[in-house]
Amino acid sequence: MNICAELLHRQIKAIFEAWGMAGEHVEVTVQMMLAADLRGIDSHGVATLALYDQFRLAGKLTLNPEIKIVRQSPVTALVDGGGGLGHFPSVQAMNLAIEKCAAHGMGAVAVRNSNHFGAAGVYALRAAERGFLGLATTSVWRPGVVPTFGAEPMFGTNPIAFAAPARRNASFCLDMASSTVAIGKIKLAALHQQPIRSGWAMDDQGHSITEAEEAMKHLCLTPLGGTPEMSSHKGYGLGAMVEILSTMLPGASFAATRTRRDPQAERYNVGHFFLAIDPSAFRQEGEFETDLDDMIDALHAMKRADENQPVLVHGELEQAHYAERSQHGIPISPELANSIRSVAEACGAPYLLTKGPNSKVQSTEH
Amino acid sequence: MNICAELLHRQIKAIFEAWGMAGEHVEVTVQMMLAADLRGIDSHGVATLALYDQFRLAGKLTLNPEIKIVRQSPVTALVDGGGGLGHFPSVQAMNLAIEKCAAHGMGAVAVRNSNHFGAAGVYALRAAERGFLGLATTSVWRPGVVPTFGAEPMFGTNPIAFAAPARRNASFCLDMASSTVAIGKIKLAALHQQPIRSGWAMDDQGHSITEAEEAMKHLCLTPLGGTPEMSSHKGYGLGAMVEILSTMLPGASFAATRTRRDPQAERYNVGHFFLAIDPSAFRQEGEFETDLDDMIDALHAMKRADENQPVLVHGELEQAHYAERSQHGIPISPELANSIRSVAEACGAPYLLTKGPNSKVQSTEH
Repeated sequence: MNICAELLHRQIKAIFEAWGMAGEHVEVTVQMMLAADLRGIDSHGVATLALYDQFRLAGKLTLNPEIKIVRQSPVTALVDGGGGLGHFPSVQAMNLAIEKCAAHGMGAVAVRNSNHFGAAGVYALRAAERGFLGLATTSVWRPGVVPTFGAEPMFGTNPIAFAAPARRNASFCLDMASSTVAIGKIKLAALHQQPIRSGWAMDDQGHSITEAEEAMKHLCLTPLGGTPEMSSHKGYGLGAMVEILSTMLPGASFAATRTRRDPQAERYNVGHFFLAIDPSAFRQEGEFETDLDDMIDALHAMKRADENQPVLVHGELEQAHYAERSQHGIPISPELANSIRSVAEACGAPYLLTKGPNSKVQSTEH
Repeated sequence: MNICAELLHRQIKAIFEAWGMAGEHVEVTVQMMLAADLRGIDSHGVATLALYDQFRLAGKLTLNPEIKIVRQSPVTALVDGGGGLGHFPSVQAMNLAIEKCAAHGMGAVAVRNSNHFGAAGVYALRAAERGFLGLATTSVWRPGVVPTFGAEPMFGTNPIAFAAPARRNASFCLDMASSTVAIGKIKLAALHQQPIRSGWAMDDQGHSITEAEEAMKHLCLTPLGGTPEMSSHKGYGLGAMVEILSTMLPGASFAATRTRRDPQAERYNVGHFFLAIDPSAFRQEGEFETDLDDMIDALHAMKRADENQPVLVHGELEQAHYAERSQHGIPISPELANSIRSVAEACGAPYLLTKGPNSKVQSTEH
């Protein structure tokens, strides 16, 4: 079924309120989750509710965190997320980076003591919407990616998002895990009892495996590249770069050693990094956007390997999803609907996604 | 034969002087080329002399370029390289970024109207040597990497280098092309008439090929990932990100459209991007380095897939090479020696690498 954004908004909000989450946190967190769903990043929107509930039940989540700017300069800042979900402090951090960028040409803000922040791309895009280049990275609460030649996970899927503003075209927006594939792809294969590609995941001895359920059990993803022969050391290096920016720079917790040394740690202390750069500090007004449009146009016009398969530019598929889903709603599978219902029932929140297959109608009533 | 750095320095210097390159440009360019050779990055040191000679003979190189700071703010600057080799303006640009970073916590400098700058990692490391995080990216004079689903090269091998300072360990230093493999690997296979791996390169129809000489002819490398199933769209996106930072931000030339629209362009107008970030703007003195050492130690101590194959951390292999080659010289193959001899003879420079197999002895005379 397709659920319109506004109804889904009310559903998530009802759950967060039942959890006792603070008011302004509810609003911003729901918005960032829906931004992911609207852009087609299904794994990082409402589908994460069950994970957040799991954090909450395990006592790993502060629901009314105090967000603090620990220190700052005209172009840098360190933010403490207070142990809650990552969306709210991350929006504040990216906004702060954007403000500093507007005033000085560049701004960087790192966040510590945070948690899962949803889709990295939606933060990078906030900078592009203001005419700036945006970078967003995050570490992850648990390790799931195995360095080249290793046999245990040391990094999270450590995503990198980079956005840049064009004019005629959609903003460029790369949003990628530094693993070969995101966990979602393996989960999906396990659900459909299909094998996964060789090179996506390993067992706990460092051997490539193709059985999806086993891969979910071990959670030993390969870094981008997949195998040493295909340069997995590059994906491993990118994962390490993201960890340095997101964990060591703000002083968050390195999950691989935390899980060993302090498995009962009160909070996961996940970290993020946000950077905004103003192209007009380098170019005359509008030149950057014109040149970027020129690059994107050239990519669209290039020779194809298969006439029926266009070359895509990062961000445009998500923009198309946004247009489609803003109008026709967000597809919610029966499994996801059940999961949302369970989360709602467990905290006594109303379940709102019920009125027949076309729940879009319902939303327009309110 | 092994040639000591000092003799190789004199050899390259003699050639640059015969070309009529300006004095301070000679010194810095040679230093950056040797820094690559000493760190074991053989493809980006003295081996590039023949390419630079080719640029010179084609009239694509200004030998006495005027390097200008076009505009700057306390934390940003745009540098014009004057149409010469990239090493000299890049050292100036990274130094400027480091100065700004020392004063304000962060500095970014973009360079336009430049050319090949050697190994990206040696610039990023300059920041790490000052205690800062360093990022260096560059576009390339000609396209050689094919976007996912495409059948013609649109980006250069667009490298990303990222360095960060540790204390007990070598500085972390990732230095990677955004293609699956660097061109050098395919060149080497062609030289030894060996096949290349499927997924490294394509023909001009977008089909994977394994014949190395054919791959060199087409110069259609795959982006990191190799195939769509192994997420080559991520490598493609990283290549685009590097192009945006290195070409669109400074206003350099996008090679894929330049070669079509202006094949006779007087200069290649390659661009670079340099960023330095001071960890002490975020953390207390020494905390960042301690946490990075902790991460590196954990990577060294992790469970291995093969007991005899240690897990490596980016930058340490290069540091080991540096220690070895500073003492025992830089290995120069007979083919490379011949190429250097040809370049020297063509411009009337003396050829200095001649005195027997152990030329190291010669260098100590001076």
